[in-house]
Amino acid sequence: MIPAVHRIDLNGDVGESFGPYTIGADEALLRHNTSAHVACGFHGGDPSVIRRTIRSAIEEGVTVGAHPGYLDLIGFGRRDIAMRAGEIEDLVVYQIGALAGVAAAEGARLHHVKPHGALYNRAARDRIPADAIARAVLAVDDTLLLVGLSGSCMLDAGEAVGLRTAAEVFADRAYCADGSLVPRDEPNALVTDPGEVTDRALRLVQDGEVTARTGEVVALRCDTMCLHGDTPGVGALAARLRSSLEEGGVRVLPLCIEP
Amino acid sequence: MIPAVHRIDLNGDVGESFGPYTIGADEALLRHNTSAHVACGFHGGDPSVIRRTIRSAIEEGVTVGAHPGYLDLIGFGRRDIAMRAGEIEDLVVYQIGALAGVAAAEGARLHHVKPHGALYNRAARDRIPADAIARAVLAVDDTLLLVGLSGSCMLDAGEAVGLRTAAEVFADRAYCADGSLVPRDEPNALVTDPGEVTDRALRLVQDGEVTARTGEVVALRCDTMCLHGDTPGVGALAARLRSSLEEGGVRVLPLCIEP
Amino acid sequence: MIPAVHRIDLNGDVGESFGPYTIGADEALLRHNTSAHVACGFHGGDPSVIRRTIRSAIEEGVTVGAHPGYLDLIGFGRRDIAMRAGEIEDLVVYQIGALAGVAAAEGARLHHVKPHGALYNRAARDRIPADAIARAVLAVDDTLLLVGLSGSCMLDAGEAVGLRTAAEVFADRAYCADGSLVPRDEPNALVTDPGEVTDRALRLVQDGEVTARTGEVVALRCDTMCLHGDTPGVGALAARLRSSLEEGGVRVLPLCIEP
Amino acid sequence: MIPAVHRIDLNGDVGESFGPYTIGADEALLRHNTSAHVACGFHGGDPSVIRRTIRSAIEEGVTVGAHPGYLDLIGFGRRDIAMRAGEIEDLVVYQIGALAGVAAAEGARLHHVKPHGALYNRAARDRIPADAIARAVLAVDDTLLLVGLSGSCMLDAGEAVGLRTAAEVFADRAYCADGSLVPRDEPNALVTDPGEVTDRALRLVQDGEVTARTGEVVALRCDTMCLHGDTPGVGALAARLRSSLEEGGVRVLPLCIEP
Repeated sequence: MIPAVHRIDLNGDVGESFGPYTIGADEALLRHNTSAHVACGFHGGDPSVIRRTIRSAIEEGVTVGAHPGYLDLIGFGRRDIAMRAGEIEDLVVYQIGALAGVAAAEGARLHHVKPHGALYNRAARDRIPADAIARAVLAVDDTLLLVGLSGSCMLDAGEAVGLRTAAEVFADRAYCADGSLVPRDEPNALVTDPGEVTDRALRLVQDGEVTARTGEVVALRCDTMCLHGDTPGVGALAARLRSSLEEGGVRVLPLCIEP
Repeated sequence: MIPAVHRIDLNGDVGESFGPYTIGADEALLRHNTSAHVACGFHGGDPSVIRRTIRSAIEEGVTVGAHPGYLDLIGFGRRDIAMRAGEIEDLVVYQIGALAGVAAAEGARLHHVKPHGALYNRAARDRIPADAIARAVLAVDDTLLLVGLSGSCMLDAGEAVGLRTAAEVFADRAYCADGSLVPRDEPNALVTDPGEVTDRALRLVQDGEVTARTGEVVALRCDTMCLHGDTPGVGALAARLRSSLEEGGVRVLPLCIEP
Repeated sequence: MIPAVHRIDLNGDVGESFGPYTIGADEALLRHNTSAHVACGFHGGDPSVIRRTIRSAIEEGVTVGAHPGYLDLIGFGRRDIAMRAGEIEDLVVYQIGALAGVAAAEGARLHHVKPHGALYNRAARDRIPADAIARAVLAVDDTLLLVGLSGSCMLDAGEAVGLRTAAEVFADRAYCADGSLVPRDEPNALVTDPGEVTDRALRLVQDGEVTARTGEVVALRCDTMCLHGDTPGVGALAARLRSSLEEGGVRVLPLCIEP
Repeated sequence: MIPAVHRIDLNGDVGESFGPYTIGADEALLRHNTSAHVACGFHGGDPSVIRRTIRSAIEEGVTVGAHPGYLDLIGFGRRDIAMRAGEIEDLVVYQIGALAGVAAAEGARLHHVKPHGALYNRAARDRIPADAIARAVLAVDDTLLLVGLSGSCMLDAGEAVGLRTAAEVFADRAYCADGSLVPRDEPNALVTDPGEVTDRALRLVQDGEVTARTGEVVALRCDTMCLHGDTPGVGALAARLRSSLEEGGVRVLPLCIEP
């Protein structure tokens, strides 16, 4: 019997530096991943950082997506802001547009959109902002692929308006039994042991499951996997993760390429 | 002898309101003009204001352009910032992209780009930032028309990279003998008498000339004419200007329509 | 029997203009009120607006307070931001300091602090941010008087750290049965009829009570009363309110003056 | 003959981190220096960073000053903005106030003010902004000491309004023959060899002179010496500089302590 062939996209959040301020591990993430979500200047990133980042992504052969977030540089987009749905829709439209313009200036195009931080989390559990984001993506460019937390209503919202979606999983984050992520400020929210990250990654991609913090096995659709740029040693981890997946028979391919 | 037929575009700078703050005379400018330059969120405008403004422009049948400026809301983009050419290029790329995205979300497209305020003035007299702006426009979309001060190096820069350009004149601003505008903070910089504005407008369009503050007659190419939204009574003035031009045999048409 | 003499401070939120953007009814509020809360540059106000506003307040003999809010100009500080308590404390310390510095530059001093918008509302119902604000005020200057919604935990928090407090009531806002304000985006949240505002004001000051939207009589401590600058016709309303109160035997005095 | 005893203050610019973004070498600068200029939230720094920085400075026994700059986080306050004198005055008043408030919250007080970056350079060569800054400092607190480039009109402006001033020199920057600094973007603007920095420091403090890039000997008043936090290896350099100065018989003392 021929084993089923699994595939996964490896994505990283990049372009979050700002003016003189450097953050993240863009170089490593762009070298080892297949897609990148580029900050749009609201939670991180500025016009020159964004342009340089897209240029680097193109050079590394990584597909470019927009990573829109709340307008909150101090909080890095990780603090929820009580914006109404219409405000969120406009916020996301603007940021996708800006990124698409910079990509065009570099001869590239956007392939996907993933909300950032608190906006991502809110859209994962609340359908109203999720719908607003889906409408925003659809309105700017209905060929864009919407990336959201696997199992969350962000993906339902995208599918409801006819967008292609990609389910994101995290090998370096702990899960709750309902498939949500353990919040960053809780103990053991982050998985930092490289071997454990790699094992979780393989199981997620090959078996479509992860063990929750409370012991339950959670089934998860896996289209793309994210490593966080602020994970210590993320460069070595990204390299190891990719080679482990490939050695495990997983094809590591960008989202936009048909298998 | 059949008289030559003159044409002019009437443009206004709109979408500069911000959050709860209302500024300008957008409704009047959109009703009486043929094109609009929409603030991009740096010197004025926010994602929701920009979207509403573009929607209104579409409803009024006004062509939409981007109006990128310095990131300086307190100074409304009217204070020069010593940005390098590459920074200016990236700043303009980002803002055009954002506007194009919002326009796309409303089913429209951008037709033109006009720098705002201190950036406009700097690019009118200094070729280095002018070239940076021209490169930015070209990189994002080479079908965009670049609007700049008539007779200034902004237009030279646009033409040098192969962009279509439009020469802008002002019937409500005083001119220097070299064709530059009298700075706003000097006496008599603004022409406020409606009759005088109308007379200057007709002479600019029909004869391609204006009398400078110091008495010289200055020849100016006239493709588009701007009324400032902060001119008192701009609504009535815009209506009167348009009817006076039309009564004077001038065809008032958007820039993008072939005659 | 000699009737009890009532007193009230009339306060207004001012200095919320920003750069070229004008908002509010500062002139009217400063003319008719006895105290002013000046925006601190985060939800509104900029360094020059703040200074001009404090100068005007001094000229009108109005006591000056700080009106710190979330860093959210687009949302005017009216959208909650999920800041941690320590972040809120630092946010408020900074803003009080800035206002105290500007007041000092004008030869005046701060007398009171009132949180703005979403921060005010959050501190009215949640003791943790209320404590953070109280700690901030205490840390910068323990002679400052803390103004909060009458009956709310903002005042409890102030008293717990030993600050003097002032209970604020609103004659132009509808109340819930628990003494909280009906949210702005609900129907009939605002009382706009000038006669009704005046009647409510007199009853609040003389009898210490208001009828809630749902019919209950709510007892409220009344030290200071706020009129909103964005209430239509607030200038005439403020004048009428003050004269009605004075005709009703109420002494209209700033908070800091001992009776 | 008893040799003259020289003294110098060693200062560093700190507190320029922002939200999640870390910049500078605050820990090293606070450990080895005698005074610190803390960013005020406009070119760098946020309310929580500023507070933590002031707390650290107090723990290290370093005197605290305000380091106001242009509102330009992307440009880190190093790009000139064409602000009018009155705007600059208000900008500086606000920032000093904010810092004084945070210092008060930590039980400390401000001792000095040094403009940052492009504002520092502009005030060094143009008396109009220098006067605006001097007026701002005087207005907030006339006991504050104004720090400016040695030999520049910033110091003249401070003295003209009766402020105490401190002349700042740089051992890690190249000088022009007129005593101005070689601009950062020119070749050899920075002196990076630790031995050379130390030699220049000793000569500046002991002999009050430095050799300009073009060979001239320039006499400079030396009250305080700055090491830049972005100089590579600044921690070791600061330690070495301090011990070299002390071994050379120089007393390293904060500005505010009478000799």
